[in-house]
Amino acid sequence: MRAIPNLLGTTLAASLLLAPAAQAAEATRIPDAVVETATQLRETALASDLGYRITESLTTEIGPRLPGSEADARAVQWAKAKFEALGYDKVWLEPVTFPKWERRSESARVTGRYAQPLSVTALGGSPGGTVEAEVVRFPDLAALEAAPAGSLDGRIAFIDYKMERARDGSGYGPGSRVRSRGPSAAIRAGAIGYLMRSAGTDSHRNPHTGITRFDEGLEPIPSAALSVPDADQLARLLALGQPVTVRLALDCGWDGEATSHNVIGEITGSSKPDEVVLIGGHLDSWDLGTGAIDDGAGVGLTMAAGKLIGDLDRAPARTIRVVAFANEEQGLWGGKAYAEKYADEVRKHQIAAESDFGAGRIYAISTGAPDYAQGAVKRIAQVLAPLGIEYAGDRGGPGPDISPFAAGGLAWARLAQDGTDYFDLHHTPDDTFDKIDPAALAQNVAAYAVFAYLAASAEGDFGSGTKADADGDADGK
Amino acid sequence: MRAIPNLLGTTLAASLLLAPAAQAAEATRIPDAVVETATQLRETALASDLGYRITESLTTEIGPRLPGSEADARAVQWAKAKFEALGYDKVWLEPVTFPKWERRSESARVTGRYAQPLSVTALGGSPGGTVEAEVVRFPDLAALEAAPAGSLDGRIAFIDYKMERARDGSGYGPGSRVRSRGPSAAIRAGAIGYLMRSAGTDSHRNPHTGITRFDEGLEPIPSAALSVPDADQLARLLALGQPVTVRLALDCGWDGEATSHNVIGEITGSSKPDEVVLIGGHLDSWDLGTGAIDDGAGVGLTMAAGKLIGDLDRAPARTIRVVAFANEEQGLWGGKAYAEKYADEVRKHQIAAESDFGAGRIYAISTGAPDYAQGAVKRIAQVLAPLGIEYAGDRGGPGPDISPFAAGGLAWARLAQDGTDYFDLHHTPDDTFDKIDPAALAQNVAAYAVFAYLAASAEGDFGSGTKADADGDADGK
Repeated sequence: MRAIPNLLGTTLAASLLLAPAAQAAEATRIPDAVVETATQLRETALASDLGYRITESLTTEIGPRLPGSEADARAVQWAKAKFEALGYDKVWLEPVTFPKWERRSESARVTGRYAQPLSVTALGGSPGGTVEAEVVRFPDLAALEAAPAGSLDGRIAFIDYKMERARDGSGYGPGSRVRSRGPSAAIRAGAIGYLMRSAGTDSHRNPHTGITRFDEGLEPIPSAALSVPDADQLARLLALGQPVTVRLALDCGWDGEATSHNVIGEITGSSKPDEVVLIGGHLDSWDLGTGAIDDGAGVGLTMAAGKLIGDLDRAPARTIRVVAFANEEQGLWGGKAYAEKYADEVRKHQIAAESDFGAGRIYAISTGAPDYAQGAVKRIAQVLAPLGIEYAGDRGGPGPDISPFAAGGLAWARLAQDGTDYFDLHHTPDDTFDKIDPAALAQNVAAYAVFAYLAASAEGDFGSGTKADADGDADGK
Repeated sequence: MRAIPNLLGTTLAASLLLAPAAQAAEATRIPDAVVETATQLRETALASDLGYRITESLTTEIGPRLPGSEADARAVQWAKAKFEALGYDKVWLEPVTFPKWERRSESARVTGRYAQPLSVTALGGSPGGTVEAEVVRFPDLAALEAAPAGSLDGRIAFIDYKMERARDGSGYGPGSRVRSRGPSAAIRAGAIGYLMRSAGTDSHRNPHTGITRFDEGLEPIPSAALSVPDADQLARLLALGQPVTVRLALDCGWDGEATSHNVIGEITGSSKPDEVVLIGGHLDSWDLGTGAIDDGAGVGLTMAAGKLIGDLDRAPARTIRVVAFANEEQGLWGGKAYAEKYADEVRKHQIAAESDFGAGRIYAISTGAPDYAQGAVKRIAQVLAPLGIEYAGDRGGPGPDISPFAAGGLAWARLAQDGTDYFDLHHTPDDTFDKIDPAALAQNVAAYAVFAYLAASAEGDFGSGTKADADGDADGK
């Protein structure tokens, strides 16, 4: 948990010398008067299928939404129209420009005595190209990183690391590092191609894609993920003790720049309309599935939460801002653009929470808020408790698209979803609408609605801007 | 259950006039002396991973085995070598010739305002071709069959029938009829393309292939199965009320004839070597998966059962014949060739059982044997009981490859596997080795070993040839 910040020594803090001292002394609190409304809002949300229907609409009518694609542009128009149809007070687009990556075709097969096809998908960011070479297996990233330069000359490196299943997704750290760092390690050892066991916990012939990167100065090589059963198969073939050759053929790559948009809808606050509570998800998806759990659900449930707050007789004090972020998948482009655009307005953001971990039930709430605001968080947690949600201090961190802004001092909350099954589906063709449980999604809508409504009604702040001020005026430049 | 047969009036029966009368009066029985050996055999098989390892070898080293493909030919050589390595007394090949069907590429996408890809696979037997047209949905086969001629002119028919999950696979009858009869019904109504919800019970983006046929006089049209989530998606799109167009592009079709082989291994009987108990599975598979549950497991577990019988100090009275049948998937070609070749030897076949319903645990044994042999079947069931297997009278019928011969009078047994999950995997890319539970497979090996050993040791018969004799000498021509 973060200590009460020292606000002295910064320009902004200096100009507010007396006020912050009072803030630090006075705890942030949730007025009793709004708790009853929040409780009713919770029950209304639980009984509503609005979040489910919005997610259905996005994933059905648009389908996959690779950043910069025609479908991505349709998704932006869909989001704008949906915000408007839901009666949001303000709706607008903010451009986000990024390099465009395209997948055209991909295939792999064992050649020679064990000839057979393998199910693969190119890693996002991989160049195209066709290589056919002997495969060398490594049990994990460290083993490949230890391979001497030249030891894989003319070979294909294969990391066979099995990602662990966990409710909080903690297996994804080591799993995704195999994807982000493996290709560069392979190149350093001389490999001409890279294969990895998917960073996934399922047992289906659906490989998991995801962005990779190549270190400066290295010549990128075709890099792909095998489905889990195909990684098993390749490992069994290699265990037979004979050389195994694979032909990997990828047609994909970077192709100029594209511009998409963060799509934003607001429910205007009743007394402090210039201050905002931000919730949202990301609008883009990988191309293999229809981006239902990643992150159609995040968009749908936060749009629904905002709409249900907008339906109240009286809006909360602050504005509810719902953001459908552009191009999260290939490098948090929407989140970075937002942080840059609003760098001077960190204090106007009361707190922010992004939903980007599937559509499972929420089991905990945590924040990076200072001690003086934890009482208010606990009060929110009390209203969330009937949903099976417990107070969890400062566990975890901000969602991906708010993390660039959180690094600049934005207060964040985490409504932790049960991700036990998330990596069965994540970044695969199987990320489709049928995987979403409507009751679990309604529970998410209820939690986000209650959280956003109460945070927007709080007396006092959750620490936005205070840490950055103390750390050196990051939001004042 | 079959009545005690009337054996008079046929050439063969006439020559055995006294013997059959004695048989009919005397019940077939299992000698007490062999039950102890069978019990030991059961425990040995339960503790062995031999069936699992044989299945691993086939599905790993060969992979998919589409009839007539290069891999199918490799599989034949694999089976011959495996029988020999296991120490079978006799091993040989019998040619099987059939039309060859090939899959080269396949894709589908929604075009127009909802543009997005769909996951499809061509039905076996489909012609190639590309069609783009409006889709018309039918809830089931009957609805399409009721469509008037011309009502689908220039359209694509889509049957959205949901197959039911059942332990005994009973949902597959109506499910597979949508595949076998749907295309012809679509053509009659004027359709230029055919789509169906996969005959499957899963929720993955892996469509289920399988053979279809076109009625005489109809011009075949491109015909494919959507994965279950894609069928859901297409149904949701159609429910929006706007026309939905799909482009279906298949490159596949019939291409001349091919010859593969039934591969046969025998453990020679100790006192009646000319009489055989037949067990087996089919060696071919569809091309999408590696044919693990369909039917690598059937081949592996029956090969292992025969080998474990061969390891006994003394072989049973009759010969154990294990058959790895060719091209079951596209029309029981191996089973038909076998029935034709051995048409004169039906009586030499004591009884036959094929394993072709996955790798789940066996829960029941049934036979088409006459009343005088049911006591012996019940005795076998007693030895199987500790495996969780119960006597089930004459429920069910023969496995697919023995059904042509059974129609000619062959006695059959059914060792019924739990198929609750079978149609999650059947004919999909997901039919891979990792789906097999080694303990369940060992239970299958134990059951087949006990069944085959005891049937081969029985005093008296299980009715082979008697029904055909009575029905008109089908095996005497």
